[in-house]
Amino acid sequence: FSSKLPKAKTTIFTTVGNLARKNKAIDLSQGFPNFEIDPKLKELVTDAMENGHNQYAAMPGYYGLREIISEKIEKLHKRLYDPESEITVTVGATQALFTAITAFVNHGDEVIVIKPAYDCYEPAILLNGGIPVYVQLDANGYEIDWQALKSKISEKTRMIIINTPHNPSGRIFSREDMLQLQEILRPTNCILVSDEVYEHIIFDGKEHQSASRFDDLAQRSFVCASFGKTFHVTGWKIGYCAAPAELMQEFRKTHQFAVFCVDHPVQRAMASYLKNEQNYLGLSSFYQEKRDSFLEGLKGSRFKYRPSEGTYFQLLDYTQITEEDDEAFAKRLIVEHKLASIPISSFNVGNRQDGVLRFCFAKKNETLEEAVSILRSL
Amino acid sequence: FSSKLPKAKTTIFTTVGNLARKNKAIDLSQGFPNFEIDPKLKELVTDAMENGHNQYAAMPGYYGLREIISEKIEKLHKRLYDPESEITVTVGATQALFTAITAFVNHGDEVIVIKPAYDCYEPAILLNGGIPVYVQLDANGYEIDWQALKSKISEKTRMIIINTPHNPSGRIFSREDMLQLQEILRPTNCILVSDEVYEHIIFDGKEHQSASRFDDLAQRSFVCASFGKTFHVTGWKIGYCAAPAELMQEFRKTHQFAVFCVDHPVQRAMASYLKNEQNYLGLSSFYQEKRDSFLEGLKGSRFKYRPSEGTYFQLLDYTQITEEDDEAFAKRLIVEHKLASIPISSFNVGNRQDGVLRFCFAKKNETLEEAVSILRSL
Ligand SMILES: CSCCC(=O)C(=O)O
Ligand SMILES: CSCCC(=O)C(=O)O
Repeated sequence: FSSKLPKAKTTIFTTVGNLARKNKAIDLSQGFPNFEIDPKLKELVTDAMENGHNQYAAMPGYYGLREIISEKIEKLHKRLYDPESEITVTVGATQALFTAITAFVNHGDEVIVIKPAYDCYEPAILLNGGIPVYVQLDANGYEIDWQALKSKISEKTRMIIINTPHNPSGRIFSREDMLQLQEILRPTNCILVSDEVYEHIIFDGKEHQSASRFDDLAQRSFVCASFGKTFHVTGWKIGYCAAPAELMQEFRKTHQFAVFCVDHPVQRAMASYLKNEQNYLGLSSFYQEKRDSFLEGLKGSRFKYRPSEGTYFQLLDYTQITEEDDEAFAKRLIVEHKLASIPISSFNVGNRQDGVLRFCFAKKNETLEEAVSILRSL
Repeated sequence: FSSKLPKAKTTIFTTVGNLARKNKAIDLSQGFPNFEIDPKLKELVTDAMENGHNQYAAMPGYYGLREIISEKIEKLHKRLYDPESEITVTVGATQALFTAITAFVNHGDEVIVIKPAYDCYEPAILLNGGIPVYVQLDANGYEIDWQALKSKISEKTRMIIINTPHNPSGRIFSREDMLQLQEILRPTNCILVSDEVYEHIIFDGKEHQSASRFDDLAQRSFVCASFGKTFHVTGWKIGYCAAPAELMQEFRKTHQFAVFCVDHPVQRAMASYLKNEQNYLGLSSFYQEKRDSFLEGLKGSRFKYRPSEGTYFQLLDYTQITEEDDEAFAKRLIVEHKLASIPISSFNVGNRQDGVLRFCFAKKNETLEEAVSILRSL
C-alpha cells in the first residue's frame, strides 16, 4: 500500500510526551494545563446528560451555543455572524482547520503556510493533493515579512493559513500586519484560514486582531477557535469556526460527513458557561501571571528570550549553553535533566535550527518552579 | 469559489428531521433512540471528569479502552488486534469511515460502494478525488450479486466499502457472502472498509459475520464500529476502528491531524462500561422485541415487508397504497399524517424508486404504538 503521507510521523507532541513520561520528566511540552478545571464546567456536562441531551446534536452545532458564540464575536470584534448559517461547532480547532482545508483545497492548489507552524496544516494540505508554500519567519523576532509572502502568491494560490496569537513564537500580529495582509489579498481569490485558538490569551495590554475585524479579510476567512484552550479542557474536543455563509455552506458539506456533529452534552455545557464573560475575559491576566513568574525565575540564567505576547508558550534561546541541534538538546533536557519542551525545529521548514525550545506555561505554579530551577542550573 | 462537492446537500437526516419537528410528527427517521440511557453511563462520565481526565487523551485513544475493545473483538470474532498498533478510537464511526477513506483514496482511484448506502461514503470519496463505482442491490430482497460486484473491479479499484448489518435494508451478509467477497478480493490489492456499526443488533439467532472473522479479509480491512449505536448515546460521538498495524499506521497519520483525539471523559466511561458484556450482548433481544411489536402492529395493514434481520431499521413497501415517489410519499406522511421516515431513494443511485420507506424502531414502545396506528390507517 502506498502512503498519501509518506513523510508524516507521529506528532512531536506524542513523541516528546512519551519520552517525558518514560523519564518522569516535568512536562512543559504539549500545550495543555495540568491544573484542576472549574468544577462548574463538570456540573454543566453532568446536567446536560441528566437533561437528556445524549443523542445527536444539530449537524452545525447546538443552536444555543452558536448563538452565544455569535454574541461573543460581535462584542469582541464588532462583526455579526449569523448563527444559523455562519458558525459551526467542531471537534476542537483541529477539526475546524482540517475541514476548512479539505473543503477548499483541490489537487494542485497552492496553500501558503507561515513557518514555524503548528504541525496539522501541512498534512491536511497534502492529503488533498495541495502544495504547501512556505514563508519563514526570521529567527530573531519571528516577524512576518509581508512582501516575501506577497511574492509567493500565484494564480495557483487557493488559501493562506495564519495563526495569531502565534504558536510557537508567542507573537501577536498587529493591526498593521492584518491591514497589510488585507491589501495583499484584496486582488486575489484566496481563502484565509485564521487559526485563533489562543485568542483569549493576550498579554501586556495588547489586543488580539482577529481576522473577523477586517471587512475584506472577514469575507474570505475561516476564523477557528478552541474551547479546549480557553476553558482548560483540551480533552473535551470542542471548538468552532466562523465564516461568511457562502464559505460556511461548503465547510458544512465536509463537516457533516467527516464527523456529523460534536459531543452534545459538552456543547450544552459550553453554551451555559460562555454566558459568563469573565470565564474567558479573565484568562489573559491568569496566564500573564504565570508567564511573569516563569520569566522572573529565569533572570540570571543563560537563556535568552523575548517575553511571549500571547498563547501559553514561551520560547527560550539556548545558544549560550550549547551548540546542539534543537531536537538533540530537547531530548537531552528530558533524559538528563528531566524537563520536557518542544524543539522549535519541529515547527520549521526543513532542517532549520534556531537554537530555541518552546515551553508551555499552562501549568501549576509548583510545576513551573521546578522547571525554573532546572533551567537555572544549566 | 468553486465547490468540491457541487451536488452535496444537507443530509437527508437533517432535512427530514427539521420537517418532522416543524410538523410535530412522530419521528422514526434518523437513527437514534428516544428513550432514556443507562444512568450508569452518565455516572461514569461524571466520574472521569472528577478524576481529572479532562485533557487530551492519547492520540489513538485511551489505552485502557483500546485494550477492552481488543478483548471484545477477540471474544466475539476470534481475532486478536494489538491495542497498541491496531485499534484507534474515533469521533463516532463516521469519523472512522471518513478517515479510512481519506487516508487511502488517491486522486483517480475507484471505490466500490454497494447501494442503497448510508450517505457519508460518497462525499468522502469525492473529496479525495476518488470515483465511486456503484453496485445496486435488487429492490426485492436487497441481495448482493457478487458476480456483478466482481465485474466492477479494475486495476483502478483501491477500496470496497461494505456495511453489515446493512443500513437501510436490515439485511445481514451471510458467511457465504463474506467468503465470496474474500475470494473476489484475494487476487486484488483492494482495501476493505467494513461498516459494522450495528454489529450488536442481530435478530432471530443469526450471527454477525464481521470482516475480522476471515483471515484474508481481515488483513486488508478497516472494521468500523460505534458506541453511539451500541449504548444509545449517538450524541456522545465515539466509535472505533480496527485494522492490521500496517494499515492502521496510515490511518493514524490522518486521524492525528483531522481530530487528534476523542473526548477523554467519554473514553474512560466506555472503558468501564464495556467491562460488563451484558451491556452489549443484551442489545439484540432488546431491539428484537421492538421490531416484533412494530411488525405485529402492521399485520393487516397495506404495507409489505420482510422482517429486518439486524440494525434498528425496518423497510416498508408502500406500493399497495400509492404510486408516489419515495420522497413525495415520505413528505406527505410527515405533513399530512404526522409520521416521519426516510425515503429509501435517498440511499439509492440516481433516481431509482423502490416504493419503500425506512423506519427506525429505536424508540419508546409508546412512540412505536403511535406510529403503528398511523400506518394502519393508510
Ligand atoms: C494536539 S497536541 C498539541 C497541543 C498544542 O496545541 C501544542 O502543544 O502546540
Ligand atoms: C448521522 S445521522 C444518521 C443516523 C443514522 O445512522 C441513520 O439514520 O441511518
